[in-house]
Amino acid sequence: MTFSLHPQLAADCHVVGDLPICRVLLNAQFSQFPWLILVPMRTGCRDLTDLPPMDYPLVMDEVAFVHDKLKALSKPTKMNVGAIGNMVPQLHIHIIARFETDEAWPKPVWGHAQPKPYSGVEAAMRAAELKELLEI
Amino acid sequence: MTFSLHPQLAADCHVVGDLPICRVLLNAQFSQFPWLILVPMRTGCRDLTDLPPMDYPLVMDEVAFVHDKLKALSKPTKMNVGAIGNMVPQLHIHIIARFETDEAWPKPVWGHAQPKPYSGVEAAMRAAELKELLEI
Repeated sequence: MTFSLHPQLAADCHVVGDLPICRVLLNAQFSQFPWLILVPMRTGCRDLTDLPPMDYPLVMDEVAFVHDKLKALSKPTKMNVGAIGNMVPQLHIHIIARFETDEAWPKPVWGHAQPKPYSGVEAAMRAAELKELLEI
Repeated sequence: MTFSLHPQLAADCHVVGDLPICRVLLNAQFSQFPWLILVPMRTGCRDLTDLPPMDYPLVMDEVAFVHDKLKALSKPTKMNVGAIGNMVPQLHIHIIARFETDEAWPKPVWGHAQPKPYSGVEAAMRAAELKELLEI
């Protein structure tokens, strides 16, 4: 089976680019947060440990890489990382830069923020900036 | 500096035991969820990648270990993993078994569930069961 992005993630996000294992997405629905999503390009994974064992540490390294790049760019109060996936049954890992001044603080963003989508042009520009940041 | 558990985590949780790097806690405030919290016994860490680089993959292995043990025990619909930490400034990683029948489903638990604390005896018994499960 070939990897393909879940339609809900495809609809909600703008593709930034591919790392060796993970596709990097910009969450295009919440422009008020620096919010990336990593999707391991593997089939049949929903929970973190559904990953092939040899891929797990490599995915975690990609999480750390993207985490630190987004942190350096955004200079947030705190980074939030989560693999939730109750609604979209394809493993994806949220990496979000949070600020004491953001609308959901100190709560997690999920369910505590109103969507504020990027325009198509804004999403493309933001994704291009992040693509350069991640060198992908 | 010696590691000590943040007072808020100490107040809200019951200690299950120690893995080589992480202290394993039972979240004693939400008895309706199988909910463990891993706290790396390292000082000065708030974000995931504040861990010493050599500890990071080992902590991720402990996350996977606890994740799979709790999943096997609870047989949930979905596992949720998150490092949020906006309120408690000591790195801690939530590992939660979720069910379609739980009160917060399909939302994440944080901010979408009412506390329902274990009694002291219940927490101790549950922690003992988990300690045996994790062989710690």
